[in-house]
Amino acid sequence: MACAIELATLGRGTTAPNPCVGAVLVREGHIVAGGWHKKYGHLHAERECLADAEEKNIDPRGLTLFVTLEPCNHHGKTPPCTQAIIEAGIKTVVIGTRDPNPLAAGGIETLQEHGITVKVGILEQECRDLIADFLLWQRSYSTYNIIKMAATLDGKIASRQHKPEPVSCPESFERVHRLRSMVNAVVVGGGTFYADNPSLSCRLDGLDPNFRQPLAVIVSSRLPAEPQHFTLLRQRPEKTIFFTSEKAAHSPEADALRKRGTSVWSLNDADGCFNLSLGFERLRYDHQCHYTLIEGGGRLAMECISQGLADKLIHFVTPRILGDDLAPSAYSGRQNVSMAETVNYRITQTETSGQDVVLTMLPRQE
Amino acid sequence: MACAIELATLGRGTTAPNPCVGAVLVREGHIVAGGWHKKYGHLHAERECLADAEEKNIDPRGLTLFVTLEPCNHHGKTPPCTQAIIEAGIKTVVIGTRDPNPLAAGGIETLQEHGITVKVGILEQECRDLIADFLLWQRSYSTYNIIKMAATLDGKIASRQHKPEPVSCPESFERVHRLRSMVNAVVVGGGTFYADNPSLSCRLDGLDPNFRQPLAVIVSSRLPAEPQHFTLLRQRPEKTIFFTSEKAAHSPEADALRKRGTSVWSLNDADGCFNLSLGFERLRYDHQCHYTLIEGGGRLAMECISQGLADKLIHFVTPRILGDDLAPSAYSGRQNVSMAETVNYRITQTETSGQDVVLTMLPRQE
Repeated sequence: MACAIELATLGRGTTAPNPCVGAVLVREGHIVAGGWHKKYGHLHAERECLADAEEKNIDPRGLTLFVTLEPCNHHGKTPPCTQAIIEAGIKTVVIGTRDPNPLAAGGIETLQEHGITVKVGILEQECRDLIADFLLWQRSYSTYNIIKMAATLDGKIASRQHKPEPVSCPESFERVHRLRSMVNAVVVGGGTFYADNPSLSCRLDGLDPNFRQPLAVIVSSRLPAEPQHFTLLRQRPEKTIFFTSEKAAHSPEADALRKRGTSVWSLNDADGCFNLSLGFERLRYDHQCHYTLIEGGGRLAMECISQGLADKLIHFVTPRILGDDLAPSAYSGRQNVSMAETVNYRITQTETSGQDVVLTMLPRQE
Repeated sequence: MACAIELATLGRGTTAPNPCVGAVLVREGHIVAGGWHKKYGHLHAERECLADAEEKNIDPRGLTLFVTLEPCNHHGKTPPCTQAIIEAGIKTVVIGTRDPNPLAAGGIETLQEHGITVKVGILEQECRDLIADFLLWQRSYSTYNIIKMAATLDGKIASRQHKPEPVSCPESFERVHRLRSMVNAVVVGGGTFYADNPSLSCRLDGLDPNFRQPLAVIVSSRLPAEPQHFTLLRQRPEKTIFFTSEKAAHSPEADALRKRGTSVWSLNDADGCFNLSLGFERLRYDHQCHYTLIEGGGRLAMECISQGLADKLIHFVTPRILGDDLAPSAYSGRQNVSMAETVNYRITQTETSGQDVVLTMLPRQE
């Protein structure tokens, strides 16, 4: 199942709004074929796996299929996977987790009715974590928001002067660009926008010529008076969106931005507060954004976390110490909170990235 | 060699001032015996390994011995290991790293003179890291200082109110007590002492009845006026040492402490500055302290780091977010430093500890 999970993740970024699913075919304890759902509208993982077996001249009859998610039971973009499994003569199906989608569920029962042995709940937590994005899309209208943060051991993301200086190592930089290649929008706060003048584009070697750069989103109650000074607004103004206050959205600066093709959205709710959730929903509705990467700074990250909008955290710990209390922190803006009031995550993956360590975290259900 | 390193670490805490060394005997690619230096004055790793082979009725003739450190060549507490290896008829010796001690070195040459094939430098960095404490004891009079820190993702170690609340998970607490069981002194700053009123003792189940609790060291320019209010000064005043200023060391509070059996050391150097290095050297000289565990707060940790006295960092990252800029940081007290001026470490081990991640780090040689 671990191998099926590994395969599933290869589809991350291209399957939306479908989940990432992986499958392997096992004969006498050895994996003989594998597949994953590669792209929305393409074959499901089970069919990919059976196709792989066919290509290798492996007879699937009597073998065991491991699949991270319950095989679908309905005609969607592709015919039901249960049918393919039954026709292939698979003897045992081992399933990571049930399908939460009532339309697709029922696969287990169909397989059992055809005499197939079904086991459910192997590495279930890992298989559920794999589809955390899919589960969110099912229950809300929001984008799946990934916070990326790179901080020193003392939680600092820049010096007191906010000078744009690298925090993490080159390998971690490349990872961030790989993340950018998978998401549909990169989001930063006004502090980062004004201090760093970032381009927020994915700069990887060998990008597909058809690759579409993620949208750039800036969350700030202040709009730039001289847009031509900002890389983003020079290079791809029509791919940039400001999340701002109602007042700023009706200012001359907003009009000037709109003339360049830049979007300016007012996110005030009834109480006059900033409603980030509204912005994320509109990103998904207007722009088919399924994933965003929120890259800081600390106030925006904390705001998303406090509003329950941080669906995943990818936190790079760099083994360096700044030691200056007045330097900006990775997550900031709360006042007078006790240790009992921390927002808690669950580490799902710990990896080395050059000299750094990367922690992948999901919200802790408590 | 990885296995020999693993064995070597089992001696950590009891071999001082000797290094931790591990050895394994290999026959046809399989480990058939192993040993490590267990305690100062006891057998060296090579002899332990050969004794293990004898006990298992394994003939060592013609086999390969892996050892993390060059076998010693001199008569110390035990006869030279080179002699034992030659007599055992070992054919090949694979050595992690050379012995930096000129007295003990020369083992490689002696082995070669007796027709033994010697390979040096396998997992050399790891084998050198293993004896980082020994290397320090050889070149300086100081204790080997391990900083232990537990911080949130935003680098916070307590709330703004400095209330004593747990930061890391129970598994990490137990690890800290295991660390305390290995060191000879636990060091805290005045902030921690006055805010937490800690006992700084090792509280593990099943401690050896002969176990000696580590000394407690408090670094503070201020001495307590009412010692009876502090657990440490009630429970084991004669095991407590204050590192303080010359002025405080001559105050009535100092006299009152000394009457309880507590030591008060003045650490002012010629310029009137606090000289921590002096305190650590005296700990080793007066109390045979080889290891200290520096447990915080952030100012003491940063002070040790800035003075080049932090030989190892054990940093627990707890997947929680406080988000309050005014809460105390894991490392603090520097002003106006840029990201180019960070103090840099090298992660030598990344482990899971319950819900936390523990990073073990050594200073980065640059």
